[in-house]
Amino acid sequence: MSSVKMAKSGAPPVSGSFDLDEALKSAATAAEQMLDQCLPRPSGLHARIHEAMRYPVFAGGKRLRPFLTLQSAHLFGVPQESALRTAAAIEAVHTYSLVHDDLPCMDNDDLRRGRPTTHKAFDEATAVLAGDALLTIAFEILADVKTHPSADVRCKLVARLAQAAGADGMIGGQMIDMLAPTHRFGRDEIVLLQQLKTGALFEFCCEAGAILGGASADHRERMLAYARAFGLAFQISDDLLDVTSTAEKAGKSVGKDTAQGKATLVSIQGVAAARAEVKALAREAAALLEPYGPAADPLRALPASLLDRES
Amino acid sequence: MSSVKMAKSGAPPVSGSFDLDEALKSAATAAEQMLDQCLPRPSGLHARIHEAMRYPVFAGGKRLRPFLTLQSAHLFGVPQESALRTAAAIEAVHTYSLVHDDLPCMDNDDLRRGRPTTHKAFDEATAVLAGDALLTIAFEILADVKTHPSADVRCKLVARLAQAAGADGMIGGQMIDMLAPTHRFGRDEIVLLQQLKTGALFEFCCEAGAILGGASADHRERMLAYARAFGLAFQISDDLLDVTSTAEKAGKSVGKDTAQGKATLVSIQGVAAARAEVKALAREAAALLEPYGPAADPLRALPASLLDRES
Repeated sequence: MSSVKMAKSGAPPVSGSFDLDEALKSAATAAEQMLDQCLPRPSGLHARIHEAMRYPVFAGGKRLRPFLTLQSAHLFGVPQESALRTAAAIEAVHTYSLVHDDLPCMDNDDLRRGRPTTHKAFDEATAVLAGDALLTIAFEILADVKTHPSADVRCKLVARLAQAAGADGMIGGQMIDMLAPTHRFGRDEIVLLQQLKTGALFEFCCEAGAILGGASADHRERMLAYARAFGLAFQISDDLLDVTSTAEKAGKSVGKDTAQGKATLVSIQGVAAARAEVKALAREAAALLEPYGPAADPLRALPASLLDRES
Repeated sequence: MSSVKMAKSGAPPVSGSFDLDEALKSAATAAEQMLDQCLPRPSGLHARIHEAMRYPVFAGGKRLRPFLTLQSAHLFGVPQESALRTAAAIEAVHTYSLVHDDLPCMDNDDLRRGRPTTHKAFDEATAVLAGDALLTIAFEILADVKTHPSADVRCKLVARLAQAAGADGMIGGQMIDMLAPTHRFGRDEIVLLQQLKTGALFEFCCEAGAILGGASADHRERMLAYARAFGLAFQISDDLLDVTSTAEKAGKSVGKDTAQGKATLVSIQGVAAARAEVKALAREAAALLEPYGPAADPLRALPASLLDRES
């Protein structure tokens, strides 16, 4: 789905002396180590499926979802193993969605992060199966007792991930996105599309920490609200970036994007109002973290960094 | 995967006065009602995904997996709601596998059970998403407290379904199947292919009843052994049927199938030995059910019926 590129280290530190870049890198490394542990090693007559699962997972990326998961878990005193396994499951689901999105019948992308997409590096059938297998293993990871001693907690994680990723979550958003060429979206519909396609999984990342930590419904709601504000801010900043880089690099106007049927929150409300909204959403997200004190600095820094996005 | 056609009502009753056809029909009706309850009704901007999930699910079929699940649950005194929800989850996974298998990049089938396949009735991208959504909802169904009051039991179901359907189960089998054109399979490899591609899900159906009923590891092992014997007998009878109908209808010989690279257990060991093996496996399966008395008559009738398959 959206490529995840945050402000590079040139940006000023956003929250005291906290270094967001470092925190993102450290979360990414830890999540990748856990993914390496959780994914099957290539073996047997069907080793190709194991290879095709690993190929898109270890293609780099900011690992924003693992970061959100680990940081939300941090707020609720969740042991690292639990947080990392949950982060790995979510990243497996995110990766599967990219593999299937890239297929010829979907976005038909040959490259992702500078490398051939999975169906190019292997073949289409293998890419379909690898996506299926990554989605499937996410639930296996969550249901394993290693993820949390309480089966109640594990079931809640499974159910909520399935909802976030399913027909009324990420997949539903993808379905709406496919209507874009024939359907004129209004603001509410664009917001709904974003909430489903990328927002639902962001929400689960943030809620997961509260679930793992056995936090109250109030805390769960607070984390969900944070994720909603962050998710929308992230989408608008993505659209802003698209306009900026388009205008600078290819001389395309916002109006042209709109004429191509690509209505975005920026094209509907204009650049200035969109910038103001990102700012307001980032403030709203930060305010929601008030009860957690300095432990929430990384989660405060993330939406704040959207104001300085360069790529 | 394999089309599931059992002996029609012309066949003699296989176990006393027990009517397998009736039992299959009644399980199918109950499973379909539960699937109708569990699948989302088309609504909202993304109603098309709900429609595309329902289309392949309500396309008929013998519902052999729900039958196995309900019958194994019956042996362990599992309440109907638990058994039916588990059966619905398994059928959702089976259906997703058919939708993805039929895709142009996989088997490229335009018709299934006389109707256009999902990617023909909708489009390829929608079929990919519908398969994804059916796989996802299976785990949501299992994790729901309505499936079983014990979260431990629900987590076990989630984990085992994920294993049965995943890279070292059904998807792994599909991967091996894709090697067929370039790889000369020996008997052990064909058995492995079958065990993964169709056997693993059969095994989960039969194990699920024992898990839901809180049965001992011994009972779980017994049900798994039954499923393995039945699954292999089912595959061989499928291959036999293929040879018979091919020979009768198109005049093709077994040798020609073999020459086309389609090694089967029948082509390797010959028709007579294959028939004898189905018989032996059916006996083995029936013997495993000995502790369950008449309650297991339907599960005894099923492998026995493979000896009389007409379609």
